[in-house]
Amino acid sequence: MNTSRLQAEQYRKGILAGDRVVLAKAITLMESTLPGDQQLAGEVLDTIIGDTGNSLRIGITGAPGVGKSTFIESFGKSLILSGNRVAVLTIDPSSQVTGGSILGDKTRMQELARDPHAFIRPTASGHTLGGVASHTRETILLCEAAGFEIVIVETVGTGQSEVAVKNMVDFFLLLIQPGSGDELQGIKKGIVEMADAIVVTKADGPNINVARATQADFQHAVHISGTQRPGWTLKVLTCSSTDKNGLNEIMDTINLFREKLAESGYLAHNRKEQNLSWFKDYFLSLLSLDPARFIHVTAKEHALRSMISSSEISARNAAEQLLEAYHQAIRDSSPRP
Amino acid sequence: MNTSRLQAEQYRKGILAGDRVVLAKAITLMESTLPGDQQLAGEVLDTIIGDTGNSLRIGITGAPGVGKSTFIESFGKSLILSGNRVAVLTIDPSSQVTGGSILGDKTRMQELARDPHAFIRPTASGHTLGGVASHTRETILLCEAAGFEIVIVETVGTGQSEVAVKNMVDFFLLLIQPGSGDELQGIKKGIVEMADAIVVTKADGPNINVARATQADFQHAVHISGTQRPGWTLKVLTCSSTDKNGLNEIMDTINLFREKLAESGYLAHNRKEQNLSWFKDYFLSLLSLDPARFIHVTAKEHALRSMISSSEISARNAAEQLLEAYHQAIRDSSPRP
Repeated sequence: MNTSRLQAEQYRKGILAGDRVVLAKAITLMESTLPGDQQLAGEVLDTIIGDTGNSLRIGITGAPGVGKSTFIESFGKSLILSGNRVAVLTIDPSSQVTGGSILGDKTRMQELARDPHAFIRPTASGHTLGGVASHTRETILLCEAAGFEIVIVETVGTGQSEVAVKNMVDFFLLLIQPGSGDELQGIKKGIVEMADAIVVTKADGPNINVARATQADFQHAVHISGTQRPGWTLKVLTCSSTDKNGLNEIMDTINLFREKLAESGYLAHNRKEQNLSWFKDYFLSLLSLDPARFIHVTAKEHALRSMISSSEISARNAAEQLLEAYHQAIRDSSPRP
Repeated sequence: MNTSRLQAEQYRKGILAGDRVVLAKAITLMESTLPGDQQLAGEVLDTIIGDTGNSLRIGITGAPGVGKSTFIESFGKSLILSGNRVAVLTIDPSSQVTGGSILGDKTRMQELARDPHAFIRPTASGHTLGGVASHTRETILLCEAAGFEIVIVETVGTGQSEVAVKNMVDFFLLLIQPGSGDELQGIKKGIVEMADAIVVTKADGPNINVARATQADFQHAVHISGTQRPGWTLKVLTCSSTDKNGLNEIMDTINLFREKLAESGYLAHNRKEQNLSWFKDYFLSLLSLDPARFIHVTAKEHALRSMISSSEISARNAAEQLLEAYHQAIRDSSPRP
């Protein structure tokens, strides 16, 4: 047992005790690109893997302006009132550009951020969607080991990250505004079909009739398109984050979903498939980055690119030679201790 | 020099002599998945690589019903009349389902198929789009070595294969029908922006005014959206495959394109970029298929999947262990002679 094993054990104890400082540090460790950190991150994950999987994972999406932050704040507080600890993770690939939104996210959900039973963590910036998704999946595991009963994964609703989120949660919730037509709302085709429930937000004051009409429209559309989960029909609900109306109905719906699909074995099956597909994605991502770690391979690639540019070699043969060079580099290297 | 080198030399001679039987056999060889064939295919490619690149590569797309076959037949014959030999390759990923369209394609373009200066080759069926694209790029090279001055790559216009074709041709032609709006015609967004020229088909008889109105509409739209190639503005033309009207204008447009963009160096630059990106795609495709060639790696994968299913290991660590197993399998294997 070496130093990093001992360190991993310290992380494990802190996380399992629900220590938020250690949890936050562990999440940062998962996001690190330093080789030493990556090894330690893997060890930490393995020490807590047996304590994961106990939360209900809820994905929430909706176009900008639909009131996602306000909804998550109200909904999260209502979940806490019923005795849950709630973690909120945000996936926003566009934050690569703006350079992170740590302050932004905390400002957005001020009351929830102050609640000792809530934990809010924004996207790690500067990564691709694949990288962000991978970190978020690991953050879910850490939050579960730290005892959070509900993990909410929020996405920005621009169509890029919904599939990634859908593939890491149990229940997928789409927020829409009172008003007509999904296309007019900027909701991409396919997102509606991914939803387990649709919630029409802002159903209060003068909006209430429009919200109900929108609910009826979507109920009708859903009736036609059907559902994709065995044993579950998509529900369309309304809510008001300011009046706190409809939040209990949403919780009831999610609980019903969990009950029915746990009983049928679908939830466990879905989790297992998600883990296997995550394994595959993770491996292919490691594999594609591996050749560039060998200096002889990158030198060979450079030489082959020159030969291609002067039509001395076909792309097929160049690719085969590069694979051969990669094999040779691995043979010349020693296995990791 | 071994037997397969001698065989490769025989292929080379046949192809350079323009022997259509050898050409057809070489294309089939490229599509083969047998390891011995694949090695020979690579050798054949390398013997002819110095004789490639001399054709003008034209991509043609358009939604089903636009009259693609009729257009390519008329246009191809008109190209032959001006002294060119013309190869027509078809990319249709959907033919995976129907199981190939060899008869279909030849029936579609009967007159062209009978012409000794034309060579028609449909998609190899049973491959992914990536595989089909890769074979088609190699078929282009073989046709060029066999002396075809024009290589037409046709795609079915459903949005899947256009990008692949655009990335292997010099000039990209979009066919549209007389009538209103690109969305109504089922043309996906982005396809119009990929085009170097748009041709409104069926501009004859009672259709002629509608065709001209469609031409004006697209000219207007194009004027707004601009063009992406330096030194070239997208042209909108009309033609009638039955009346043979407009075919010369299309040829003049393509010749003008070639002249201007060869002079500026853009065509050569574009080809070079295409080759390098082909190399990259080819390598990543080889790399992703490589681990499954080792029985110890597939056995390890199987074991890791079980451990993931029973939450004994994280996906991250499983992926890292699988990469380690892959490295070990390579170390245990001997290099290719």
